[in-house]
Amino acid sequence: MKSNESNLLGSEQSAEALDAADPIAKLKQRFELPENTIYLDGNSLGALSIDAKKRARDVIEAQWGKDLITSWNKHNWIELPLQVGEKIAPLIGAGPGQTVCCDSISVNLFKLLSGAITMQPGRCKVVSQKDNFPTDLYMVQGLQQQLGADKCQMVLADEDKIESSLDENVAVLLLTHVNFRSGKIHDMKTLTRLAHQKGILVIWDLAHSAGVLDVQLDECNVDFAVGCGYKYLNGGPGAPAFIYIAKHLQERFSQPLSGWMGHRSPFEFSPHYQGSEGINQCLAGTPSILSMSVLDAALDVFEQISIKQVRTKSIGLGDYFQQCLATLGLLNEFEFSSPLDSNQRGSQVALAHNDAYAICQALIECGVVADFRSPNILRFGFAPLYISYGDVQQACDTLKHVMTNKTYQQARFHQRSTVT
Amino acid sequence: MKSNESNLLGSEQSAEALDAADPIAKLKQRFELPENTIYLDGNSLGALSIDAKKRARDVIEAQWGKDLITSWNKHNWIELPLQVGEKIAPLIGAGPGQTVCCDSISVNLFKLLSGAITMQPGRCKVVSQKDNFPTDLYMVQGLQQQLGADKCQMVLADEDKIESSLDENVAVLLLTHVNFRSGKIHDMKTLTRLAHQKGILVIWDLAHSAGVLDVQLDECNVDFAVGCGYKYLNGGPGAPAFIYIAKHLQERFSQPLSGWMGHRSPFEFSPHYQGSEGINQCLAGTPSILSMSVLDAALDVFEQISIKQVRTKSIGLGDYFQQCLATLGLLNEFEFSSPLDSNQRGSQVALAHNDAYAICQALIECGVVADFRSPNILRFGFAPLYISYGDVQQACDTLKHVMTNKTYQQARFHQRSTVT
Repeated sequence: MKSNESNLLGSEQSAEALDAADPIAKLKQRFELPENTIYLDGNSLGALSIDAKKRARDVIEAQWGKDLITSWNKHNWIELPLQVGEKIAPLIGAGPGQTVCCDSISVNLFKLLSGAITMQPGRCKVVSQKDNFPTDLYMVQGLQQQLGADKCQMVLADEDKIESSLDENVAVLLLTHVNFRSGKIHDMKTLTRLAHQKGILVIWDLAHSAGVLDVQLDECNVDFAVGCGYKYLNGGPGAPAFIYIAKHLQERFSQPLSGWMGHRSPFEFSPHYQGSEGINQCLAGTPSILSMSVLDAALDVFEQISIKQVRTKSIGLGDYFQQCLATLGLLNEFEFSSPLDSNQRGSQVALAHNDAYAICQALIECGVVADFRSPNILRFGFAPLYISYGDVQQACDTLKHVMTNKTYQQARFHQRSTVT
Repeated sequence: MKSNESNLLGSEQSAEALDAADPIAKLKQRFELPENTIYLDGNSLGALSIDAKKRARDVIEAQWGKDLITSWNKHNWIELPLQVGEKIAPLIGAGPGQTVCCDSISVNLFKLLSGAITMQPGRCKVVSQKDNFPTDLYMVQGLQQQLGADKCQMVLADEDKIESSLDENVAVLLLTHVNFRSGKIHDMKTLTRLAHQKGILVIWDLAHSAGVLDVQLDECNVDFAVGCGYKYLNGGPGAPAFIYIAKHLQERFSQPLSGWMGHRSPFEFSPHYQGSEGINQCLAGTPSILSMSVLDAALDVFEQISIKQVRTKSIGLGDYFQQCLATLGLLNEFEFSSPLDSNQRGSQVALAHNDAYAICQALIECGVVADFRSPNILRFGFAPLYISYGDVQQACDTLKHVMTNKTYQQARFHQRSTVT
């Protein structure tokens, strides 16, 4: 056994005992999970909750269908982006007035990148990580293309070179808190502090953190953040994203996607844009009320619990998964892409294998939904609100079956479809 | 009687006879309209169709709820933006491969403005109309703020000065086809031709045209267009918008909101952005699948009819409304803000009155939903798919009641709420 595998054989508690002792186990009942499926892809698309389903019917059939245009007032659609933002805020350690729900992560990154660059005259570099999620890098490239490299220039660093890339020419550091492939967590507090020491503004992408990690934006003095509504927040496919700007930066900040919903008085229909003073200045066009309402309802599951409890279970599930792999003798089949140490790991375990795509397909056929990320990563995501220790054990048993019997070697599992 | 009111007294056909002769009257049955309400605000938020309601349940409860992440392939979510774009295309006179559904009008305008400016080296002016819908102007202002006035400079012209504003310094002409307040239609073909003669690229905002006017983008040689999913397309509150780029411009075009969904191979997760060759290059982040699916279903009502039939009825309803106003002796109560000539008018009649806000509220209390636009405009929108001639007559009768009895003068109708 390799030394870094020593923590794979921990307690020998049964899944039943772990589930019985889990203080948030009962939340699983608030989700409508498909039968005969263990869904370990909540890091890609969160599951449907009963709250979300009910609200969808209500917003479509009663609010839209019956009350029509009057719903903007009657059901307060106009405040929905801020209301959802304030529901997300406690999950990411943000005080009030700093978080708003809108658009996609990509579009929100453009707002922040553009606004942040403007606040850094004389600096043009945007440092990010080579294996950051592509859309984050694409948005920097889009801005660079638009403004020219003298105004915005992307610099990509390997993970271990990020710190040494930070100098007085850097305007913005853009990082994703939890890497989408490896699940590795960046030290938000330290990196933010180091960046600030060089006068650099920091944007954190919380796509794989919000709703599952104990993120502390205010405490880490974070400047800007974006995050995803459809992963661990369970807002449904393509749910709107969110944006965070630290209070003390809001007055100096402005962004170019200055649509009417960001105006301080949108219904005055003035021809001159005057941005809202607060976080609402980040709004652009008319928000997607259907999708945002569903996200709003999906967030209610967090009301009775703390994000620390969620994180504790997330670690428990990941560690238990690793223990089961060890117990079942599967360690030699894969390379770990995710850190073995749970303090370094988000809510997923990532295993590298040359046949990762085919193994993923074979698992799905057996009712275990994991996902594949190019070129060779098999991701198992653990959404603590609806995944039990029993689910984890069963997933590992299925993986054992697939690997032992090499069922993944059947030709049909090797034909790639568009999305996995 | 003023001479321009002569066409207000036309045929004396009854509403019943007009409805009986209406070839698309039966489509009203495909909508779930609230009882005891005449909804003349489809120009602000279209009504809920049965198709949309059913699809909402299906996409939320079956696709998301049961099939979860596999729906990207199984239910072809990945193609949805293009699929919806192609459904919209025949309604706006666009051949295939030029229309895609995504984001909001505001965000889409930013893409087009930014891309179009880049295609016009040496030119910086963006000409628009003073009373264009504010968000259109705000997006130009946002781009101007970002790029500097030497790269992008907004020039606002009064309606009658637009033509004379077009010169060789102008990069882009940005107009809304149907004015949101007055309902007046621009001559798309002529203005596009005049702009092209000066080497100007033209962006048309079809917010109040798509789904109700017989728009002919290809025939008018339009370069770019955007439009709204939640007005006459009935996609639900905040439904995603659409974007059109003429085929011959797509290769030269690029836009800065270069998110992963616009990449030619999004699931390769390459760190380098390579835009899709076709109209998909306009996509940015993950699309809102729930909202877009509902819009997709809502568009099915157009399958069996032609947009010319819709426009014919739209004119019929507007003319009939004007005739009823004349018959009921209401002409002296209001100034017409919308053109009396139906060829110049979109699908709304706009009446100016000092007490427009209060009259609007009094009408709503009587079950007739119109809307108010600052400072003094009462708008009556006619969505031909679900408004009958009988509805129009009843709305006019109610207006007569409100005006004759001056019920709108009650204090409670004068307190303004946020949105109207």
